[in-house]
Amino acid sequence: MLRLIALTTVLSISSPTYAAAVQGEEQSDYRSVILIIGDGFDDQHVTMGRNYLAGHDGQLVLDGLPVRAAVQVQTVGKTAPWQYVADSANTATTLATGVTTHMGRVGTGTDDQDLVTVLQLASAAGFKTGIVSSSSITDATPASFVAHVSSRGCENPDIILGGELYGNEYEGCPQDATGNGGPGSIAEQILSSPVDVALGGGLKHFTVADPRTGRAVLDALDPSTVTAVTDRRALLSADSSGRLLGLFAEGHLPVRLQGTDGRVAEEPDTSMLNSLDWRLGSVTQPEPMDCVPNPDYGDTPSLALLTEVALARLSLNNDRGLFLMVESASIDKQSHKRNPCGSIGEIAQLEEVLAVALDHAESHPETLVIVTADHAQAAQIVPEPSLYAEIPVPIYSPGYVARVNMPDGGLMTINYATSSFPSEEHTGANVPLFANTTADGRITAFMRQREIYDAMAMFLGLLP
Amino acid sequence: MLRLIALTTVLSISSPTYAAAVQGEEQSDYRSVILIIGDGFDDQHVTMGRNYLAGHDGQLVLDGLPVRAAVQVQTVGKTAPWQYVADSANTATTLATGVTTHMGRVGTGTDDQDLVTVLQLASAAGFKTGIVSSSSITDATPASFVAHVSSRGCENPDIILGGELYGNEYEGCPQDATGNGGPGSIAEQILSSPVDVALGGGLKHFTVADPRTGRAVLDALDPSTVTAVTDRRALLSADSSGRLLGLFAEGHLPVRLQGTDGRVAEEPDTSMLNSLDWRLGSVTQPEPMDCVPNPDYGDTPSLALLTEVALARLSLNNDRGLFLMVESASIDKQSHKRNPCGSIGEIAQLEEVLAVALDHAESHPETLVIVTADHAQAAQIVPEPSLYAEIPVPIYSPGYVARVNMPDGGLMTINYATSSFPSEEHTGANVPLFANTTADGRITAFMRQREIYDAMAMFLGLLP
Repeated sequence: MLRLIALTTVLSISSPTYAAAVQGEEQSDYRSVILIIGDGFDDQHVTMGRNYLAGHDGQLVLDGLPVRAAVQVQTVGKTAPWQYVADSANTATTLATGVTTHMGRVGTGTDDQDLVTVLQLASAAGFKTGIVSSSSITDATPASFVAHVSSRGCENPDIILGGELYGNEYEGCPQDATGNGGPGSIAEQILSSPVDVALGGGLKHFTVADPRTGRAVLDALDPSTVTAVTDRRALLSADSSGRLLGLFAEGHLPVRLQGTDGRVAEEPDTSMLNSLDWRLGSVTQPEPMDCVPNPDYGDTPSLALLTEVALARLSLNNDRGLFLMVESASIDKQSHKRNPCGSIGEIAQLEEVLAVALDHAESHPETLVIVTADHAQAAQIVPEPSLYAEIPVPIYSPGYVARVNMPDGGLMTINYATSSFPSEEHTGANVPLFANTTADGRITAFMRQREIYDAMAMFLGLLP
Repeated sequence: MLRLIALTTVLSISSPTYAAAVQGEEQSDYRSVILIIGDGFDDQHVTMGRNYLAGHDGQLVLDGLPVRAAVQVQTVGKTAPWQYVADSANTATTLATGVTTHMGRVGTGTDDQDLVTVLQLASAAGFKTGIVSSSSITDATPASFVAHVSSRGCENPDIILGGELYGNEYEGCPQDATGNGGPGSIAEQILSSPVDVALGGGLKHFTVADPRTGRAVLDALDPSTVTAVTDRRALLSADSSGRLLGLFAEGHLPVRLQGTDGRVAEEPDTSMLNSLDWRLGSVTQPEPMDCVPNPDYGDTPSLALLTEVALARLSLNNDRGLFLMVESASIDKQSHKRNPCGSIGEIAQLEEVLAVALDHAESHPETLVIVTADHAQAAQIVPEPSLYAEIPVPIYSPGYVARVNMPDGGLMTINYATSSFPSEEHTGANVPLFANTTADGRITAFMRQREIYDAMAMFLGLLP
């Protein structure tokens, strides 16, 4: 954070009445936006999910949505006008604020200024608001709707001061720390934000001590205004009044599916002779794998259950409407790990969330439901067998390959081949957007990511 | 070919009048379909093209089209219900006939039956018809609209009998040879088909001698009914009466752009130490390249010029309408060769074709313009620098990498990493579809490829 754009300044030019007049339409008393983000959910992943979950000739719930668009994903470059591949922090910031920015930034612009988010605008205008994610609730995507820090790693009051992160030295965001007059780490900003419901993982970020005070974020929680829960039973029995913070894992929520014996994509095994001349020798492809339940998933509440609870609470005694962001975060995280079954299970979770959202829209017609991805990701469906299988030389995919047994008896082969590092890279394709009929006339066939913010904020009457 | 479904049988159940009655709409006297196929033109390639040609914050002509859909690409498996990655033969066959089939098939079903194409139906119903491609006009995509053979390689009367193809033994399609009572090779079927205009490359397939008769396909051409041209000047001065066959290269037409000094994507150069341990040593990335004119392009007529000529001829003295398929073929062919500049130049050609088609639709309002891809392809836009660039280990892409200098000063990095073979594989993502307002109510947000055939044939009143 460098400077704060006062929320009141923004609101003064954007009253709902003015917006309705400008749009020439009758402003309903109650309108809602449910934004569902599939992290890394590009067209390769959508097709992987469709092939596995609905069958190659079937269709997903999202395929039934009447509105579809392509969304250009944009990242401001530090040395060139643009970078062509994004991360979840800058893209979620753009979705949340309508402003393009640098990679790694959460709710902050390229000059480190704090950007007002659609959730904050909605909250100030009387809408109930919520964030739900299968990641730590402090992770980049949910964080960008409620918090403002210069770097996505600043999730708690310890790491914000810098130190070691993922085994590397990390500068943190010291200027954002409360001790330095800043708004605090992401966990602190979630607690101090107006968000009515925040459900996901990330308990560790709320329990780690601030090295300056010795106190954790949860120590500052006032139970008369915020209910905190950490398991399914407590979630379902939580008092319906006040704000709700649900943290169901120390870090990201466990995923639903994994490969046989925990296997992920593997390198094809080439013979010594092949390493000397690509035309010679032989190659052994990885054995096919099944997608099976992840034993670590246990009693984790599903993303659909979290969404149901959020919508029920946010709808209660509400005559204004709501803004809810739900992220299926581990489509991307499992793709980084080269685990197609992991991603497929989280696509199934996204589908269930969409079904819950569409149910809500049935009973609340002025609900805009949008599904989109933040950026494209590494997985590619490749031919099984190779297009060149009849040519008598060993042929295989560079990088890593997983061959997934399909429910209908087929074999779908996925390659991950963007990086020599143990984690795959994102990619730069435009991403899909799916929306319900409420989007007619608001979503065009081609959009930049910042225009999704515009569409949501205008629908809620928050922008002229 | 195994058996021929009589065209008259199909037509007897699908008169335009009946179709109009079923659709409850007034049947215009004049309606046209222009189908533009970008071969391999998936969302990675669309975005590559947009970033380079329009700028990262710009938009392509196709981005201005109001209708966008995702299209599931389907291939019937030989040992499983489905294969998840297609080729241009089976997908063009599906677009042309509405039937899903095996890879490699041209206008034939899984039992080798000949399938009636939308072009053949249109021609029989009085529409003028054309095929235009930057490939050999006998290549899989254009061929599938007019010809019927069991295997895409059967382009001429020599190879149809089998022999050596691309250095490998090839069985050909002997049952389709005229000497065996079949309809002949693709070149022969194009000449004997009713298609009014066929423009592209592939002269060699019309001049090679049939080993049984010693005669080439062009020897059978009757100049009183078909004008054959082989260069731009003859194209522009051709008699406007009768059919037109234009063959402007021996094989595929040369492409417009190439990388500096003809460079394509290259393998990152890793040090010896790095080959022993991925965390050690160093890596040298390929030098950036510019996209520059291909010196071999010469006086080749552009795909847009071929489209203009085709539309002008097909519109002449025509009160019924037209069906025209135009393929930008080498988006895919250059992607197989790991040549991003080559693909980008052919995306530019597709954009110009679309502009010509939209101009035509301006003056002929009942024109359905559809742009789509046949299948996804290998290129991926990857981060520059890596997402993990701050970690002090050498990080690079598997496979091949090209770093393209952008007109605005940026650097776009593309990887090709699907195959150890000298040619990349196709991939399995659903592909985009773009259409003009005429498509409203005819194109839904999610379609299978066969349903594009349905939409085109119904629009022309060829199907009930």
